[in-house]
Amino acid sequence: MSCEKLLIVFGNIVHCTEQFKIHVIENGFVMVSANKILEVNKESALLEAKVRLNITKGCNIEEIRLKKSQILIPGLIDTHIHAPQYPNSGLGYDKPLLDWLDSYTYKLEKKYKDLEFSKKVYNAVVRKTLNHGTTTACYFGSLFADSSMELVDSVIKHGQRALIGKINMITLAPSDYLETRSESVARTESFIKAVLAKQNDLVQPVITPRFALSVDMDLMTELGRIAKQYDLHIQASRLNFSSHTSRKTILAHGIYLTDSELKLLAERGTSVSHCPESNTCLKSGLCDVRRLIEAGIKVGLGTDVSGGPSASVVQAMKAALDVSVHISFQKPSYVPLNFEAVFYLATLGGAEALAYEDKIGNFETGKDFDALIVDMDLENCSSDYLLDCSPSEILQKFIYLGDDRNIVNVFVAGRRVK
Amino acid sequence: MSCEKLLIVFGNIVHCTEQFKIHVIENGFVMVSANKILEVNKESALLEAKVRLNITKGCNIEEIRLKKSQILIPGLIDTHIHAPQYPNSGLGYDKPLLDWLDSYTYKLEKKYKDLEFSKKVYNAVVRKTLNHGTTTACYFGSLFADSSMELVDSVIKHGQRALIGKINMITLAPSDYLETRSESVARTESFIKAVLAKQNDLVQPVITPRFALSVDMDLMTELGRIAKQYDLHIQASRLNFSSHTSRKTILAHGIYLTDSELKLLAERGTSVSHCPESNTCLKSGLCDVRRLIEAGIKVGLGTDVSGGPSASVVQAMKAALDVSVHISFQKPSYVPLNFEAVFYLATLGGAEALAYEDKIGNFETGKDFDALIVDMDLENCSSDYLLDCSPSEILQKFIYLGDDRNIVNVFVAGRRVK
Ligand SMILES: [Zn+2]
Ligand SMILES: [Zn+2]
Repeated sequence: MSCEKLLIVFGNIVHCTEQFKIHVIENGFVMVSANKILEVNKESALLEAKVRLNITKGCNIEEIRLKKSQILIPGLIDTHIHAPQYPNSGLGYDKPLLDWLDSYTYKLEKKYKDLEFSKKVYNAVVRKTLNHGTTTACYFGSLFADSSMELVDSVIKHGQRALIGKINMITLAPSDYLETRSESVARTESFIKAVLAKQNDLVQPVITPRFALSVDMDLMTELGRIAKQYDLHIQASRLNFSSHTSRKTILAHGIYLTDSELKLLAERGTSVSHCPESNTCLKSGLCDVRRLIEAGIKVGLGTDVSGGPSASVVQAMKAALDVSVHISFQKPSYVPLNFEAVFYLATLGGAEALAYEDKIGNFETGKDFDALIVDMDLENCSSDYLLDCSPSEILQKFIYLGDDRNIVNVFVAGRRVK
Repeated sequence: MSCEKLLIVFGNIVHCTEQFKIHVIENGFVMVSANKILEVNKESALLEAKVRLNITKGCNIEEIRLKKSQILIPGLIDTHIHAPQYPNSGLGYDKPLLDWLDSYTYKLEKKYKDLEFSKKVYNAVVRKTLNHGTTTACYFGSLFADSSMELVDSVIKHGQRALIGKINMITLAPSDYLETRSESVARTESFIKAVLAKQNDLVQPVITPRFALSVDMDLMTELGRIAKQYDLHIQASRLNFSSHTSRKTILAHGIYLTDSELKLLAERGTSVSHCPESNTCLKSGLCDVRRLIEAGIKVGLGTDVSGGPSASVVQAMKAALDVSVHISFQKPSYVPLNFEAVFYLATLGGAEALAYEDKIGNFETGKDFDALIVDMDLENCSSDYLLDCSPSEILQKFIYLGDDRNIVNVFVAGRRVK
């Protein structure tokens, strides 16, 4: 352990160490050395830790002391977001799905042939999502490999942790927004090589067949081979190629999975990205997260921009709560998710869904320090802070009322990016 | 018509002139004299209007020109909000309703015996709601008449339009937060007289029996008499005293009204305040707005703070959309509300629900000028504006993604209050 650069954050800490439950450390501290968490405990245990870790006066220590209205929480994880669709956020939800895809989605995505436009949008997306507390994002790019490299560059520039995929799509889209099978394979491999050549620990390529019907079995077999060769994640919307799922596969939505599909996915360790805002805005259905979790599936939250209007995982938490309450109206014995459960989905659940639980998701010793300082007592925010709140209540206010203004600092791998 | 002080706003105007539909005037203008709308039309018709209205060079005219990313919309109307509960926004939704009432609501409301605390909270509530674009609010106060006068003073000070009620509650609350029947009557009359003595056109007292079970039939008869004597509105949560409803009665929630109750309420012109966020957070149920409207009931939106977490009518519009989509999942032939419908509920629908449609709700000549300038192209907001949008699309982005930052100006009765 080097003590060249230590950070200690003192204050009330809220994170999850198990499913659907928060763990509060009042008057605690998190000690960070470079990118990694060295120690987490009550402040009363600091001295002992310093002795044990041989942290002396000679060490270079930065200290941050949280106010009573602040909490330290793990960074939020967006397990499904389409970066190129960001300019369409909030538009066209009165249209039927296929109309929406044609008049908004594909029409916009074609523009990413233009690298300048790509750079402009992707910088905005990465800045915006970091600002909203997304320390890790699992991105769909466009069809174009070089444009998707602009997204890689933005992510590296702004210091976000990300999985980034150039999408594969050989059927069922406008003819000028498709590729052939061989193009798809060749461009995917060249994209992967270009991302890996960046040698950035925070950024990984991910195999991204768009929909189940965007690719055929032959292409999927090729993509599966590539994933295996480079040990990569696979992500898709509404995919049902159970033959190609693994611990590193994440499927968006998962509303209509049958019991036997759930069983198979659980056995393989395949995850689901729950995108409640998108499922509602695009009128896809209500996803029962409790059913997925009880079947042993790992579940994280996704904004699915611009299927969902908002790039904020805070909004996704709120929407996940609402959807779950509405499911409970239909099932009298159903216990809806509460704020602790959706906080788990947005943090540790997301890390597990991305098979990143050894790296991120909470404040366990040895993990990377991805964290937010949340403050619910600020001028000119969505709510006023008129009475003292406990750390759990501050978290509730953040989930139900908070926005980017309430996130005063964002850290990714120990680096302050907001 | 005096031309001492004229305001003309030029730009794209979006409002409702009929149920569930927006009306867009591209390149239009609204001309305002003092508090009232004098003329609304396309900019090309301005000269003709000036001649007809005898507006000469000698007139004192302020002009505002909207940008392409801006729209002028009517002020938002919150038909149901509990001002004293504002400090609890976002708290306690994991608790059962009675627990929530006891450990949050009543516990907090008792504090309003303290007039300093009242003043502090009510100033915050009024500033916050105006900032979020609520030009008209229909407020529940606390049990205390003098504390409720602090709310009246805040509303007058900040220039909001409001109906304000001291609540009546003689049973079914903690014994130290109840009044007797005779106290309830006497305090209500003295509160009404005090409000009327302010002689402020924008502020009216409203009779406010809290729940159906908070008052008895004798008290309700007395309150009905007072309402008649002073020609006042009546508001209540989940009231089913059909004997005392009229055109000036507004009932919050209305989820479980039977067909025959709907028929009776429609005949009497009684309105419903649809509070989708509260109905979800407090697990009350899904309110089918289309069914109410089709039965001839007037419907507005309510935040029901802190049954709902957010004091923003924009959030209420978004929640009304979500709820309606979720109802459509259960009823295959059901057409969910779209952004135009919820915009109607938040503006003209709210005005009709409060029997204020002659005064506010849209930009018709002769109405008061209650308006917002909305801008979706601002730095440091929840979304970026990366492609040009039509006025309808700007409204969509505002409803799905906007917050107080996107509301750059607020006018109430011609006065700029933000
Ligand atoms: Zn998607
Ligand atoms: Zn209420």
